[in-house]
Amino acid sequence: MTTVPLEQLPGRPCPIAATLELVGERWSLLVVREIAMGSVRFSDIVRGTGAPRDRIAARLKSLEAAGVIQCELSPGARRHTYGLTASGADLLPALNALLAWGERHAVAADDPQRAARYRTLVEPEEIN
Amino acid sequence: MTTVPLEQLPGRPCPIAATLELVGERWSLLVVREIAMGSVRFSDIVRGTGAPRDRIAARLKSLEAAGVIQCELSPGARRHTYGLTASGADLLPALNALLAWGERHAVAADDPQRAARYRTLVEPEEIN
Repeated sequence: MTTVPLEQLPGRPCPIAATLELVGERWSLLVVREIAMGSVRFSDIVRGTGAPRDRIAARLKSLEAAGVIQCELSPGARRHTYGLTASGADLLPALNALLAWGERHAVAADDPQRAARYRTLVEPEEIN
Repeated sequence: MTTVPLEQLPGRPCPIAATLELVGERWSLLVVREIAMGSVRFSDIVRGTGAPRDRIAARLKSLEAAGVIQCELSPGARRHTYGLTASGADLLPALNALLAWGERHAVAADDPQRAARYRTLVEPEEIN
């Protein structure tokens, strides 16, 4: 598992900055969201995030290095699948907090896509 | 207040992605952290985040446009100060969740800076 030495952070040596250093990039957090929502294959993660394939490939590598996700090749399967580690599941409260803020402040109440496309994240208990 | 039309998001039309579109950039979240910790002047915010001045100036503008922070010129004061709006205070649960994750997974237990430099965020109640 990767950790971030606080003294290497540019500003205040704060765990929030350390978190953002490891997983704070937009596509990284959306990859975690996708896996939490059940998108376990590379192509599904790419589709769900809407990010370029090479960007997602890079984020999957760094998330795996950070100990947030794990990659598995199921016996008999020809494709890799991705899952959250315990550390990755621990990110769900943060994602749910970002979700709550987004529902309240980032998405208009009358957004036409709001009702149709909103899905809740699974709870950490269901993953572990 | 800015909102993000869900249909304009590249992937899944999800409030998390909308949140990250508005405030998800690393320096934006750290600016909110700094203001929540009492850094209300531009120079203090720059120092606390460790980001380039022009980057912080840009983030302050976009956070103000998003309705997350407000800029004030106190009577008699010669400098602007920044404060969180109610929307900005609503981000604190997300920042605290990122903080909790960082303490547990992003910062080594024996990090020499850990004890000396860690400070908790103020609670939303204290801001409003």
